[in-house]
Amino acid sequence: MTMKFASMDELKEAVARHYGTPCLMIDLDVVEKNIERAQKLCDAAGVAARPHIKTHKNPQIAAMQQRAGARGITCQKLGEAEVMADGGLDDILITYNILGDEKLARLGALAATRTIAVAADNPVTIEGLPKAAAIAGRPLNVLVECDSGRKRAGVETPGEAIELARMIAAAPGLAFAGFVFYPVENAIGAAQTFRDEAVSGVREAGLEPRILSSGGTPNLATLSQFSGITEHRAGTYIFNDRMMMAAGMASLDDCALHVLATVVSRAAPERGILDSGSKTLTSDPGGGLDGFGLIREYPEARIAAFAEEHGMLDLSRCNDRPPVGTLVRIVPNHVCVTVNMFDRYVAVRGTELIGQMDVAARGRLG
Amino acid sequence: MTMKFASMDELKEAVARHYGTPCLMIDLDVVEKNIERAQKLCDAAGVAARPHIKTHKNPQIAAMQQRAGARGITCQKLGEAEVMADGGLDDILITYNILGDEKLARLGALAATRTIAVAADNPVTIEGLPKAAAIAGRPLNVLVECDSGRKRAGVETPGEAIELARMIAAAPGLAFAGFVFYPVENAIGAAQTFRDEAVSGVREAGLEPRILSSGGTPNLATLSQFSGITEHRAGTYIFNDRMMMAAGMASLDDCALHVLATVVSRAAPERGILDSGSKTLTSDPGGGLDGFGLIREYPEARIAAFAEEHGMLDLSRCNDRPPVGTLVRIVPNHVCVTVNMFDRYVAVRGTELIGQMDVAARGRLG
Repeated sequence: MTMKFASMDELKEAVARHYGTPCLMIDLDVVEKNIERAQKLCDAAGVAARPHIKTHKNPQIAAMQQRAGARGITCQKLGEAEVMADGGLDDILITYNILGDEKLARLGALAATRTIAVAADNPVTIEGLPKAAAIAGRPLNVLVECDSGRKRAGVETPGEAIELARMIAAAPGLAFAGFVFYPVENAIGAAQTFRDEAVSGVREAGLEPRILSSGGTPNLATLSQFSGITEHRAGTYIFNDRMMMAAGMASLDDCALHVLATVVSRAAPERGILDSGSKTLTSDPGGGLDGFGLIREYPEARIAAFAEEHGMLDLSRCNDRPPVGTLVRIVPNHVCVTVNMFDRYVAVRGTELIGQMDVAARGRLG
Repeated sequence: MTMKFASMDELKEAVARHYGTPCLMIDLDVVEKNIERAQKLCDAAGVAARPHIKTHKNPQIAAMQQRAGARGITCQKLGEAEVMADGGLDDILITYNILGDEKLARLGALAATRTIAVAADNPVTIEGLPKAAAIAGRPLNVLVECDSGRKRAGVETPGEAIELARMIAAAPGLAFAGFVFYPVENAIGAAQTFRDEAVSGVREAGLEPRILSSGGTPNLATLSQFSGITEHRAGTYIFNDRMMMAAGMASLDDCALHVLATVVSRAAPERGILDSGSKTLTSDPGGGLDGFGLIREYPEARIAAFAEEHGMLDLSRCNDRPPVGTLVRIVPNHVCVTVNMFDRYVAVRGTELIGQMDVAARGRLG
């Protein structure tokens, strides 16, 4: 059923002919290499991998990660976890404060048949979670989210973390399961101090943190520096992107995902338009990268600005400039948000066309 | 079947309980007022309204625009036009260069049963379009897209526009239908000169431009300054947003759409986290606005930064600060890209809950 082509140009033409542009192309050979590399890094550090599916949002890819050795998966939203559970996945950590009756009912239904753990960083969240546990009919695992400098979710001090752990342990239907960290890159020390104090504190209170979870693709490079961690959540490594290249975590060959796009206008010699604007590539600046994506065939071209369906190409640095109709492959700045704009992938292996896969959990924002 | 609530707080709670957060809330009373105002501006200028559906992507709202007096609709992508046609709309202008066999076949199928016009700004596009006309089995209307300074799609000179018009007229199965403009705000003069020269030129060549189309919500304010225009395409006015407020085109009361979100974390007194990050509100800076949205209940709060599912709130300027669990309504920077993140709307009228509507053409990127 698959089709093998003689060159990347022929593959691009076939994909455009069958699926149209813009579309997401993922190379499953590269995906498999990326899974293997991340799993080996975790194995070498003696840490379980619990990959974050927010990047790919696809149960089959999550299953590939599990077959390679991962312990369960991580989701950022309850809706993602529901899609993964429907797709056959189990042992799911949702690293998010889940609030409100609508979500607590859904969480309870999910936890009735699956092994679920959730994170919390405040008393209001913890006070609500027993409703979900009651619906599930069995204890709900709750971890305390800890912030060691990122200023996102998470309590800011070990003292608060210990207090929330005791609150979880005392709440009906809840089981204290451990701590969630997301260390700032190159600042593992702060997370280490936080972890050590929080773990000592809860042990003094007679509680055992079974899960001590770290995260982030860049932090895969420093896993061995964060001691006493049981699991690591990484997401972006599955496809990689310009941000991961800038962080030194990936080469161009490690980028498994491209947006296949068409040059639709060339109104002047020094500029052009791609059929991929902010509704396709997103306005994510990738932490201050130059432009909004890397064009493989024209690396000197700059995706300088966007309208919703127009990517404005600055071609002034290019000797060779693409005529109207040219198909190009773009490595996005931030692959997680770009995937989220599409309903499906076109899967390939090298120059072989495999078929479609769903971005099944796209838009599951709640 | 609708439910009327005593206050906005009660409505918000009911919407959160039924649909969860984050979700899109649109007020159909405000939508109707916005439609009426734009239609009156077009009527007063003697210009037909051809609303751009890229903002709402919903056939029922497009039908509301047509019932109010619009002549047909505008779409930016072929996929949007297909969804609108499936939803019963007709007389559709697609202001985009359509290229490639996959799209030409779809365009032909669409044009077989609907009145369709497309834009082109280059010979390659025009050379492909006869394939679509042949499939449609009747002439395809083609307009030349003209750029009077925006540096997006569109030929840069009247001379090029005239040449493409002649090329269209000479191509098998194509009918030259007119010119598409998208004037830079406050620079109508350049568009006027372009229009006048292009129209004279094609008339000298024996061609009549039936459609002379301008566009943009801000340009609704200066419709009478652009003479000899037959139609106007505006999109954002249907809901409005922070950009339209900054442009002086809307007040807060004219904003028909809010993202209903929940405060999920308050790790420190001066900051908090919303359950709406870059995968919900998008990283669109709205042309340099401060932060990523306006929170109706806490206007001094700043949505300062994003993770994918976290909106980082800077509360340092707020006297009153929202506790965890607070429901807030956010006016996004750029409503068109925010709508595109969701699969459905929750429709309300004031404090009455009406029900769900689909963002039917979301993700129709090709």
